[in-house]
This record gives sequence, structure tokens and C-alpha cells, in this order.
Amino acid sequence: MTTPNPIKLSDQIPWCIDWKGHYYTYDEFVNQVQLFHGHLAPGLLIGGKMVYSALKQSPKDRLLDALCESSKCLPDAIQILTPCTIGNGWLKILPLYRFALTLYDKYSGDGCRVFLDARKVEQWPEIKTWFFKLKPKQEQNTARLFSEIKQAGDHILSHQPVRVAKQFLQKDHVGMRTLCPRCHELFPVKQGKICSACQGNSPYVSPKETSNCR
Amino acid sequence: MTTPNPIKLSDQIPWCIDWKGHYYTYDEFVNQVQLFHGHLAPGLLIGGKMVYSALKQSPKDRLLDALCESSKCLPDAIQILTPCTIGNGWLKILPLYRFALTLYDKYSGDGCRVFLDARKVEQWPEIKTWFFKLKPKQEQNTARLFSEIKQAGDHILSHQPVRVAKQFLQKDHVGMRTLCPRCHELFPVKQGKICSACQGNSPYVSPKETSNCR
Repeated sequence: MTTPNPIKLSDQIPWCIDWKGHYYTYDEFVNQVQLFHGHLAPGLLIGGKMVYSALKQSPKDRLLDALCESSKCLPDAIQILTPCTIGNGWLKILPLYRFALTLYDKYSGDGCRVFLDARKVEQWPEIKTWFFKLKPKQEQNTARLFSEIKQAGDHILSHQPVRVAKQFLQKDHVGMRTLCPRCHELFPVKQGKICSACQGNSPYVSPKETSNCR
Repeated sequence: MTTPNPIKLSDQIPWCIDWKGHYYTYDEFVNQVQLFHGHLAPGLLIGGKMVYSALKQSPKDRLLDALCESSKCLPDAIQILTPCTIGNGWLKILPLYRFALTLYDKYSGDGCRVFLDARKVEQWPEIKTWFFKLKPKQEQNTARLFSEIKQAGDHILSHQPVRVAKQFLQKDHVGMRTLCPRCHELFPVKQGKICSACQGNSPYVSPKETSNCR
């Protein structure tokens, strides 16, 4: 993707802007989150602001890839607002579980990392409670949480320049494939003589035990 | 999600139907793929048919999760046609690299696995060339490939009942979090005294070397 043209602000303040320059008010983004993600998650609303912040910090003429340091919520903000998806390979998810994402030049690796800043969250009691998990979900004040998120905007975020290391820039090539002599399905030769699933990594118990697929 | 109500066919044959019962003609799904995935990928068109096939085989009154055995293309068909996304956790991706997906009851694990059947592909020379990677991409006949995919429909697919093993049904709980004394960001306590990124798993080279984030 290339980053959007300079933002034209209308009377309504945008909550975030996608890579094509289409802007969403807070309510519009809430709606978009519900449509794609299935429900309204606080992390995804903040995630929209984080993607917007990273897009603003990025040069306008580069093809950007995305890296997400958490698999929870945040990847969907990237998938809604950029062309980077888990299926096209332009979005990578690392299991670091930090609340951070990076948009970077897919060739050089230079990019902008945006994170929810624990120090800045101190001023927002309900965001802090949610972020630090100080109370069980059902005891959190959801209305106040969303109100604080809306007020805080990008004041709870920080960003830093980063360079993504070369090994993360390379495409994961599957290489030659062949038929597995056990399951008779195609698999990458580099997995071995039989496919990874038949080597014991299948997520299924024996299909013979079930009869639910009609 | 619960599976859609019985399908009402109009004059146009649907290529696929999403979980809400909204149907897409072949051309409409091509358009949807380009919008979400960024470009038209053969695997994603077939993936749409696979999701449709799995939805048809699934009971109508269950909450379904999705499991995808490949990270390439196929997850996006699931994200377009079901409420299961990588960010909401209802879609899991396993690096088995078989061209297969499963929709399953999120509580019992009972589900339907659909795969591109290497034996059935034999009758479709251009699909076979693409699937087995018999020629480099630039030497493949793309027009013929898409024509064969459209004609073949679900005749190149097979499905089987499966039961997803219990360990895959459990939610991945992050647990207690604390501030990392090095990067001052929140991370799961179970990673250790410092966060995983600071333990050497950071995808970045030193940010001091870069200056691209303005």
C-alpha cells in the first residue's frame, strides 16, 4: 500500500483514516468494528487510532507492510484500515503480546511502531483498569471505558522509529510440494516424507469417531 | 456464528454464501476478494467455495469456529464469509500447509473439514498446474485457470467429518501482565522477568539506527 494523501478534515473529527484516505468518525469506526470483528472491543477502537497514527507518521509513497505484536484484537484494526491481511501475507503477527503495531517499508524495513503507552494510561483510570486487567471484565465500567477511549484519542499512544530485521522481510516460501503417502494431500516437501499433520501434528481426533458432517 | 438459513436460489447461481445467508455470484465474490485481499488470487476463489461447502455441511444452530491449515490466501476466504477473524480468535491458523479448512462447533469440536482434493484436480489441467506448481507463475495460463475454477466449482473439493482436539478448543489466555523493566511496556508475566521481545525475540534492529518515523 502507499499511505494516503494529506487528510482533508471536515466538520467532524475523524477517529481514524484508512490507507486510501477514507475517514471514519468514532461512530462509523465503531460500526465497522462490529461488522468485521463481530463485537465492539476496546482494544480494537484504540487499534484504529494506532493504525491512523502509524499511517500519519509514514512516508506517503512507500509500499507498507504491517507487523502486529499481539494476536488479540489489534490485527483486525490493521485488516480493516490497511490492505494488509493475514491471508495475503502483508500482515505478520508475532506472539510477543505487547500492545503494539508497526507499519514499515516492505523493502527496507524502515517503519513506525505505535504502542499503547503504559505511562500515559495512568491519567485514564478506566483505561488503566482494562489495560492492566485490574478488575475482572464484568466489574469494569464499560461505558466509562469507551468514554475515556474516545476522549483520550491518541494521547495514550507513543511511537518510535524502527527497522524491521531482514529475516522478517523475507517471504515465507513453501517450496516444492508432493502428495503425502498417508493422507494423499499435497504438502511441502521440506516437511519430510509424510506431511506434518500425519507426523502427529493433526489438530483432529480420528474422524471415524464423529458423524456431524452430513 | 450460526449457519445461515436454507439458501434461496435466485436466477443466478451463487458462487458462495456467507454465514448470514448473503450470496455472492462469481463476479461479486471476485470483487469482494479484490477489495479485502488486494488482488485476485486463485486460492481465494476456491477458498470461497470451500467455506460455502463447509457451511452447507454444518448444522444450522451452532456457534462455529474456523481452523485453517494454511496461512496462504485461505484465511481471507474465512474472514470474508464468516465472522471468524484472526483478531477475534474465532479463526485459528495452523502451519500445516495443506489446502484445507474446517468449520466446527466451538464447544464440542465436531465439524466439517473441506479440502482441495488432489485426485479430483487431475481432470483440470490448469488447476493441477497451479496447485502442484508444475510451472512458474508467469508461465501459467491465468485466464484458463480462472475459467477452470469457475467451471469446476465444488467438483474439485472433498469434505470429511472431523472432531477438533480439545487443546485447540481452549482459549489462549494471556493471564496476568506486568511492566517490563527494560522496555517499560506491559507483557504477560508468564513470559519471565523481562518481556519476550527484550529476551531477544524483538523483530527490530536498534531504533537508533533509523530515522524514518517522522
